[in-house]
Amino acid sequence: MLLSDLGEFPLIDRLARQLASRGTLPTTGSLRLGIGDDAALLSLPEGTELVATTDALTEGVHFRRDWSRPEDVGWKALAVNVSDLGAMGARPLACLLSLAAPRDLPVRWVDRFYRGLSECAAEYGCPVAGGDTVASPGPLAISVTALGTVAAERAALRSGASAGDLLCVTGVLGESGAALALLQAGARRRPADAPLYAWHFRPRPPVAAGAALVEAGLATAMMDLSDGLASDAQRLSRASGAGLRIEAARLPISDAARRAAVRLQTDPIEWALHGGEDYQLLFTVRRGDFLRAPPVLAPLGVTATVVGEVTGSRVTLVGRDGSRVPLRPRGFAHFVHATPGE
Amino acid sequence: MLLSDLGEFPLIDRLARQLASRGTLPTTGSLRLGIGDDAALLSLPEGTELVATTDALTEGVHFRRDWSRPEDVGWKALAVNVSDLGAMGARPLACLLSLAAPRDLPVRWVDRFYRGLSECAAEYGCPVAGGDTVASPGPLAISVTALGTVAAERAALRSGASAGDLLCVTGVLGESGAALALLQAGARRRPADAPLYAWHFRPRPPVAAGAALVEAGLATAMMDLSDGLASDAQRLSRASGAGLRIEAARLPISDAARRAAVRLQTDPIEWALHGGEDYQLLFTVRRGDFLRAPPVLAPLGVTATVVGEVTGSRVTLVGRDGSRVPLRPRGFAHFVHATPGE
Repeated sequence: MLLSDLGEFPLIDRLARQLASRGTLPTTGSLRLGIGDDAALLSLPEGTELVATTDALTEGVHFRRDWSRPEDVGWKALAVNVSDLGAMGARPLACLLSLAAPRDLPVRWVDRFYRGLSECAAEYGCPVAGGDTVASPGPLAISVTALGTVAAERAALRSGASAGDLLCVTGVLGESGAALALLQAGARRRPADAPLYAWHFRPRPPVAAGAALVEAGLATAMMDLSDGLASDAQRLSRASGAGLRIEAARLPISDAARRAAVRLQTDPIEWALHGGEDYQLLFTVRRGDFLRAPPVLAPLGVTATVVGEVTGSRVTLVGRDGSRVPLRPRGFAHFVHATPGE
Repeated sequence: MLLSDLGEFPLIDRLARQLASRGTLPTTGSLRLGIGDDAALLSLPEGTELVATTDALTEGVHFRRDWSRPEDVGWKALAVNVSDLGAMGARPLACLLSLAAPRDLPVRWVDRFYRGLSECAAEYGCPVAGGDTVASPGPLAISVTALGTVAAERAALRSGASAGDLLCVTGVLGESGAALALLQAGARRRPADAPLYAWHFRPRPPVAAGAALVEAGLATAMMDLSDGLASDAQRLSRASGAGLRIEAARLPISDAARRAAVRLQTDPIEWALHGGEDYQLLFTVRRGDFLRAPPVLAPLGVTATVVGEVTGSRVTLVGRDGSRVPLRPRGFAHFVHATPGE
């Protein structure tokens, strides 16, 4: 059955029913009224501010229907948004979905997309509060808005880094870049690559870790890594008006990524710097505070690694050979470069 | 210059600059932090709840680049969203824009689109707090999320109508339907048609009127008219579990629409019932309260007309000849019918 057989309103009902059946459509708690009226109603805990972000995915640019399972596209559409909430130190409140879909899209695809989205919603406690589904004469265009809350005046901005702070990242870098490189090379899928593909198709941004760092007063500046460390570090540097020195030897890279790099005869540092889609946190912390971070993060299963420090006025990379060079973005820019698979 | 010459990030900067130059990018007041970080920060007035809604427009379905000026598309993308806020009785807080655009779109088009959007943002006090711009291999896909606030527990839902309440609409109905019919008929543009085209391309939903009705405790149920009275009345009826009797003779129709109907040899009631895109408010009010509405609405330049009452269990239409028939939707359903211009 195709969408054209179904009609617009049954499609919204279908989403609401599917979410309700998964327990991700509560109308108690913060979400007082969800899908079904002109707008959703949400109450914010006292003393908090609203955090709002939106991210879009388009078929052929951000995902390919022949490479990605619909469940994974649904998961990722929300995951990249809650990642931005975590980057502010916020806890998820709810999300809204906007879906422009071709009429010949199988209803089954949409059902599976909703399933992945609602799995992510349940995982992050970010119920779908509303949405809009419209026809498109072109490819699928998905847009999600995520809403969260953070203690008033406490959000972690990109602008708070000061000279002397340590620069840290959560987790490991380059997983997603490695997976994309394997896909583009048409590499045979090996079990050892599973964590790479898992992160690429179903990233798990450490949202609670971002909130915990802010609540513990540890992050002086923070952002999520979506376009690659080289590109994102520039943004943090510019916003803070301070340089960053990053040490290549300190970048946390998994064994799986290292092995994939050997197979593809490349340097995994490239993926960590330029691969993008890491959805880890990049944050700065006062030097004397760093040792307070691991006990805050460990209960959440999140590691943090010092990768450099705030110093000077530019972003530089200290290579494994001790050389120091300016670190320039080479990330994915939508309107400039050809996109993967084109 | 095309978008492909510009790059993604300059495009976001361009939006921020354009909004700033129009004074619609405040970082004081409720919007504490706008475009430029991972997410926007907003503070809600004490004692209020958050109202959130999202609406998408796609090229070729909701607008045609050869029929609509980019300024009007930008205006309408936000106007249809603040209309939903007004329908809950909320006052606008901020909005987020998601734009998937083809690489060969002229930058000039985007600039003009932003201009219309920011004009609407200024008109409704709904600044652009954030957004995402991505490439699309297909047509333009626009999605806007609007956020607003309403006094806690006071929002007007679709479900509050009770037997005996009067059914009312703001303004006049069928303006947009008349304009679309004129466009589809290839009718010569006459000055007398200007109000019809104006509403079609640049609707001005009575958002403050919705908030005022709720703040005065007048609307027992409310929604905005986007798909046509026949279709939307069904939704209000279903949500409230109560029937509606609508009198054709009471439907407010402008002289301009009446004259257009004569030219096209049709009945303007059809536009009022099925044309859609009215963006007026449909609301119910206790019979004894109705006379309190005009003094609340008049200072806002908004009229309200009683078009029927809440009675029985179905939605029926009393014709000008006194006949009474079930009123069934014949509105625009995205995945079912062919779209204008296809």
